[in-house]
Amino acid sequence: MLFLVRMDVQVPQHLPADTFEAIKAREKAYAEDLQRQGKWQALYRVVGEYANYSVFDVESNDELHALLSALPLFPYMKLHVTPLAKHPSSIR
Amino acid sequence: MLFLVRMDVQVPQHLPADTFEAIKAREKAYAEDLQRQGKWQALYRVVGEYANYSVFDVESNDELHALLSALPLFPYMKLHVTPLAKHPSSIR
Amino acid sequence: MLFLVRMDVQVPQHLPADTFEAIKAREKAYAEDLQRQGKWQALYRVVGEYANYSVFDVESNDELHALLSALPLFPYMKLHVTPLAKHPSSIR
Amino acid sequence: MLFLVRMDVQVPQHLPADTFEAIKAREKAYAEDLQRQGKWQALYRVVGEYANYSVFDVESNDELHALLSALPLFPYMKLHVTPLAKHPSSIR
Amino acid sequence: MLFLVRMDVQVPQHLPADTFEAIKAREKAYAEDLQRQGKWQALYRVVGEYANYSVFDVESNDELHALLSALPLFPYMKLHVTPLAKHPSSIR
Amino acid sequence: MLFLVRMDVQVPQHLPADTFEAIKAREKAYAEDLQRQGKWQALYRVVGEYANYSVFDVESNDELHALLSALPLFPYMKLHVTPLAKHPSSIR
Amino acid sequence: MLFLVRMDVQVPQHLPADTFEAIKAREKAYAEDLQRQGKWQALYRVVGEYANYSVFDVESNDELHALLSALPLFPYMKLHVTPLAKHPSSIR
Amino acid sequence: MLFLVRMDVQVPQHLPADTFEAIKAREKAYAEDLQRQGKWQALYRVVGEYANYSVFDVESNDELHALLSALPLFPYMKLHVTPLAKHPSSIR
Amino acid sequence: MLFLVRMDVQVPQHLPADTFEAIKAREKAYAEDLQRQGKWQALYRVVGEYANYSVFDVESNDELHALLSALPLFPYMKLHVTPLAKHPSSIR
Amino acid sequence: MLFLVRMDVQVPQHLPADTFEAIKAREKAYAEDLQRQGKWQALYRVVGEYANYSVFDVESNDELHALLSALPLFPYMKLHVTPLAKHPSSIR
Repeated sequence: MLFLVRMDVQVPQHLPADTFEAIKAREKAYAEDLQRQGKWQALYRVVGEYANYSVFDVESNDELHALLSALPLFPYMKLHVTPLAKHPSSIR
Repeated sequence: MLFLVRMDVQVPQHLPADTFEAIKAREKAYAEDLQRQGKWQALYRVVGEYANYSVFDVESNDELHALLSALPLFPYMKLHVTPLAKHPSSIR
Repeated sequence: MLFLVRMDVQVPQHLPADTFEAIKAREKAYAEDLQRQGKWQALYRVVGEYANYSVFDVESNDELHALLSALPLFPYMKLHVTPLAKHPSSIR
Repeated sequence: MLFLVRMDVQVPQHLPADTFEAIKAREKAYAEDLQRQGKWQALYRVVGEYANYSVFDVESNDELHALLSALPLFPYMKLHVTPLAKHPSSIR
Repeated sequence: MLFLVRMDVQVPQHLPADTFEAIKAREKAYAEDLQRQGKWQALYRVVGEYANYSVFDVESNDELHALLSALPLFPYMKLHVTPLAKHPSSIR
Repeated sequence: MLFLVRMDVQVPQHLPADTFEAIKAREKAYAEDLQRQGKWQALYRVVGEYANYSVFDVESNDELHALLSALPLFPYMKLHVTPLAKHPSSIR
Repeated sequence: MLFLVRMDVQVPQHLPADTFEAIKAREKAYAEDLQRQGKWQALYRVVGEYANYSVFDVESNDELHALLSALPLFPYMKLHVTPLAKHPSSIR
Repeated sequence: MLFLVRMDVQVPQHLPADTFEAIKAREKAYAEDLQRQGKWQALYRVVGEYANYSVFDVESNDELHALLSALPLFPYMKLHVTPLAKHPSSIR
Repeated sequence: MLFLVRMDVQVPQHLPADTFEAIKAREKAYAEDLQRQGKWQALYRVVGEYANYSVFDVESNDELHALLSALPLFPYMKLHVTPLAKHPSSIR
Repeated sequence: MLFLVRMDVQVPQHLPADTFEAIKAREKAYAEDLQRQGKWQALYRVVGEYANYSVFDVESNDELHALLSALPLFPYMKLHVTPLAKHPSSIR
């Protein structure tokens, strides 16, 4: 079951730079792991913005919320989720 | 080069139903053809809406505009294009 | 799997009144049937508006889109879907 | 009398983490108590967001405002209230 | 129980002028009657717009929706309802 | 001459709690005084929000701005003013 | 007492061209007359739009609404009114 | 003096196709002529939309409004004008 | 050449009160000087808001930007500029 | 391949003034260098705002994102990118 997710990172002003770098390193490892599992199907940078569009493939809404709220950057991001369905003209 | 495109269809009130069905049939053929060519990489229905999110893979902005403005439904859709770049955490 | 759906009816100006009444009668029968099946879990009127908030309980995004796009009023409504997850403080 | 309420939590940056955890614990107890009383009829997490949609069943606008403004998280949330009426197609 | 209601009239282009005048005459009679009953507590014109702000005093959400959806101009208006509570600094 | 005013309080994060309580006490006294003078004709709490809708009855725009900008909470509020006129269907 | 008014003309599609020209001629005469009376103090075209910003000088909200709703183009315009007060740094 | 102008064409539904084609031909000739005069300095298509961003170089606001309101497509477009100034980091 | 400018002051929370008062005093002197020169043609307070609408009369976009960016309050304001042209119904 | 980019600078409140000046000096050098290379084709100040509209000429979305995210002011700006295509009426 697919979902489009837009994530906008809002860099916290008061966080020490190395703390934020450590969070970003954990985020990268977490994202790569979910991609290898096939749950985070696509991950694109929005040109010119500290933001991404992603496609997730999960079993349920609950699983998606669990995955997203465990993102190391979750407290510093604004997320918006759009549920997707099969399109009748899609050949996949 | 990837682009995310959202398309919202606005069904024309004054168009005869069979004319509109004919346009939709041409749209479907056109969409399937571009998917087979690898230019229309992904096509998802937005749940509950007469709308889709699509990913296009093209050589240039001009090619993308040519593809989109040739959509049989183009006169009856509102489109919004977001340019995408490689994300540093993407494993693809 | 639960989804909140807001539906805003936009009465078509050119439709004969009895045609529209017939569509609304089919909509009512359809809504009551889905409620009896447990798929349309809740249906509330928004005070002062020709609109409703509804809760659907379905197996997948595809099932939800199939149910919504089959609404007799679908061509005359603007829909917005919000996926819901279990809340940690919910006692249900 | 039913109301749909959307609550968006805005985590205060300057609050010590354990103070905020204590507030959330009180919020959880408060929410569970109101649910047991039947006043907080439904409580759903919005997928991917630190937000919920809730349905309240109260005697009056004044009672609803009293319940909401007593939420331990009230100073850290943005709330929006929509009054609901019985829908003619609801079978409840 | 008080509610603030904003009503914006959208004059239908296809309605004959005398039909619309007849609807407005019924609207006026209906509004005056509800004011005399004390249910439509205040009715103000928004300067420069074909719109009003009104205060209603009703027993329930259901009563308010019944009153509003029976407005002769209801099919030609956009309404927005805001529930009001007693303010601690109000001396009334 | 009547005006509808919406006021949204934005609690300052850096203000000591007792300083803010003192400002609110002065606000309450000021609001009660203007109500007794008949200038602040109505004051309603918006359900679920730290906000109010008010009706002012003043001689001029300048008088209204003087009254509003002297509110003790003025530096901590977002205000929006809508001028009102007599409605032809009002029986007052 | 001054008010800033923005007016956006929405040309009616179904009106015969000469009917609309006649309305515009009456609008021009009306506007010039109010300017000569000193009530319509300033009238500016918004560059690139069929819209204007105007300053009115009137005795009351009721007078302003009477003047605006008598505009020959009133049924074909969207108006927005902002009440103005004397600025402490204005030297007028 | 430079201005950025965004133009969105809204194709009129009731206009015969050949009438609209004739207007577009006049628009093209007009646009090419103003470009040759150096007044319409740049003209770009927005990818995926029936819209353009343009840069105009004119002597005054009045000249710009005269040029824009004389566009054959002016009655069928929504325009937005942004005045531009020399940027201190521009090397031109 | 006329421009309408809306300025919204956003009082900086961290600035000492007397520093801000000194900036406001310089702003007032600057505004009065430009008014005397005829460049700042009109200056109105928006009722209920820490904001103004102003009309500037300048030779060019560059001159306007130079005047606005030299405002002592410039770093603490949000500005929006609308270019104005002569209106055909203006009698000035 | 052309892109229109709007950049809005949001001056960080906590940054020491000379640190910010140093960043701006590096930004200026960077902008001038990219202009000389022909990649940053045009750079305009938005009148009255700490913002610019720019036109970039790049080989790909990835190159554009690399150029933009390397801007010394990138962490302090909000950017929005619009892909541009050749316009059929452009004579360039």
